Amino acid sequence: MLELIEKHRCYNGYQTVYEHDSETNNCKMRFGLYIPDKEKNIPILFFLSGITCTEQNFIQKSGFQKFASDHEIAVVVPDTSPRGEDIPDSSDWKLGKGAGFYLNAITTQWSKNYNMYDYICEELIEIIRNSFNFDKSKIGIFGHSMGGGGAIQCAIKNKELFKSVSAFSPICSLSKSSFASLAIKEYLNNNSEKINLYDPIYLIENSESVEKIKIDVGLNDEFLDDLYLNDFEKVSSKNNQKLIVNKHHGYDHGYYFIQSFIKDHFEFHSSNLL
Amino acid sequence: MLELIEKHRCYNGYQTVYEHDSETNNCKMRFGLYIPDKEKNIPILFFLSGITCTEQNFIQKSGFQKFASDHEIAVVVPDTSPRGEDIPDSSDWKLGKGAGFYLNAITTQWSKNYNMYDYICEELIEIIRNSFNFDKSKIGIFGHSMGGGGAIQCAIKNKELFKSVSAFSPICSLSKSSFASLAIKEYLNNNSEKINLYDPIYLIENSESVEKIKIDVGLNDEFLDDLYLNDFEKVSSKNNQKLIVNKHHGYDHGYYFIQSFIKDHFEFHSSNLL
Repeated sequence: MLELIEKHRCYNGYQTVYEHDSETNNCKMRFGLYIPDKEKNIPILFFLSGITCTEQNFIQKSGFQKFASDHEIAVVVPDTSPRGEDIPDSSDWKLGKGAGFYLNAITTQWSKNYNMYDYICEELIEIIRNSFNFDKSKIGIFGHSMGGGGAIQCAIKNKELFKSVSAFSPICSLSKSSFASLAIKEYLNNNSEKINLYDPIYLIENSESVEKIKIDVGLNDEFLDDLYLNDFEKVSSKNNQKLIVNKHHGYDHGYYFIQSFIKDHFEFHSSNLL
Repeated sequence: MLELIEKHRCYNGYQTVYEHDSETNNCKMRFGLYIPDKEKNIPILFFLSGITCTEQNFIQKSGFQKFASDHEIAVVVPDTSPRGEDIPDSSDWKLGKGAGFYLNAITTQWSKNYNMYDYICEELIEIIRNSFNFDKSKIGIFGHSMGGGGAIQCAIKNKELFKSVSAFSPICSLSKSSFASLAIKEYLNNNSEKINLYDPIYLIENSESVEKIKIDVGLNDEFLDDLYLNDFEKVSSKNNQKLIVNKHHGYDHGYYFIQSFIKDHFEFHSSNLL
């Protein structure tokens, strides 16, 4: 059962927010959904946000709706973690609420609720496919920072599901990035086999390649070294994974950077999902 | 002395935020400033925000930077009221911090700090003219809701200063709108002569016309009746004030509406300020 929380006319479509009971995360979850004015053959694009975000950041700050409207693409923007008073949390912004890391936790404390990988790739995708009249076969995924890495690892393991993938400033190494060090300890007990399941660099090295991945990053990004993008580029090159990495002078890690290049990502996904 | 608080590369320019000591409001004030990559002949556009906003809402949520960059226009986004721990405030969101109403208060409690009219039309405009290499003669003004009415009343009284004016969902009557009832009581002691000084409808009736005013409003605006836009249209027609009012089915009062039509406002001001 989906409950409509927000609905605003925006360009030639509606920006909505829905809430539902998640079986995977055992709590209520919200997601943003942009619905263009078109009756059928609407491709679907998932956007995975970064640490500290809810579904609100991208829908309020990226200006994506103009391009989703122009290209007639539906855009699903999940929250980044389970939510609610009963949900375990942490005082560190890199763990707990707002920092689900798009993985399934295995530790007692976190495993009941922190199952964002299954939530995105199984539960939410089925909800979207079954509840709206979109094209069930034309699905792409992209994201930012934690969600950029999330989009890449989800796409590599679900080639039949996601036909197109791109990222802004992705965290490319779950095992090395200091963003993820608490998450892999707490959610995954530092179990390297489990970490590898969600690590973009490991997955590129050990999987068949996917369609060309588009990445944009700012060279004034305050977290640039911690993204391990150079390692990702090397591994991709070695393993014949096609990449387009655009490095932009002066731009930082935030939404002013994202909005500056959001148009290009819609053009990329639109042409892949035709 | 301007202190740089934020600076982010955004499209072909920078989104900045500055802080300074305001002599008019007797406190520190912040404003957003978008600076396009151009060396000279840069027009300036002031955007006045609505109740509850700071300088952050418009710069984060409207997506204006794409169009300011395309048209090479500098955009100044003032805060909506004085700020600081010592500044008088109210528990009602329509009075005090976030609700300066672009007027000069006359009552003892508010007059030391709540002088947003002089702040915008005298102090801030001089700061912008003196501190940046923009075109001092090409200045336009626009705004939203409280700030839409603010832009219109500032423009009518300062024809030599503001060469172009537009508004989203403006509060057109300071004397009738329930948005303003507390403000005119507290700031202006319900003094009708003082209210008239800032009332768009009164000013249209009692001043020479200005250049054509562009207004956009959503017909699903939850505050539509309280804007008194129909009265403003009647008075404008009677007094030969040229207007373009676009009424949009389905759109509401918020930033999803603003972002949907922001491009048109940049095209309007750009052609007026050529």
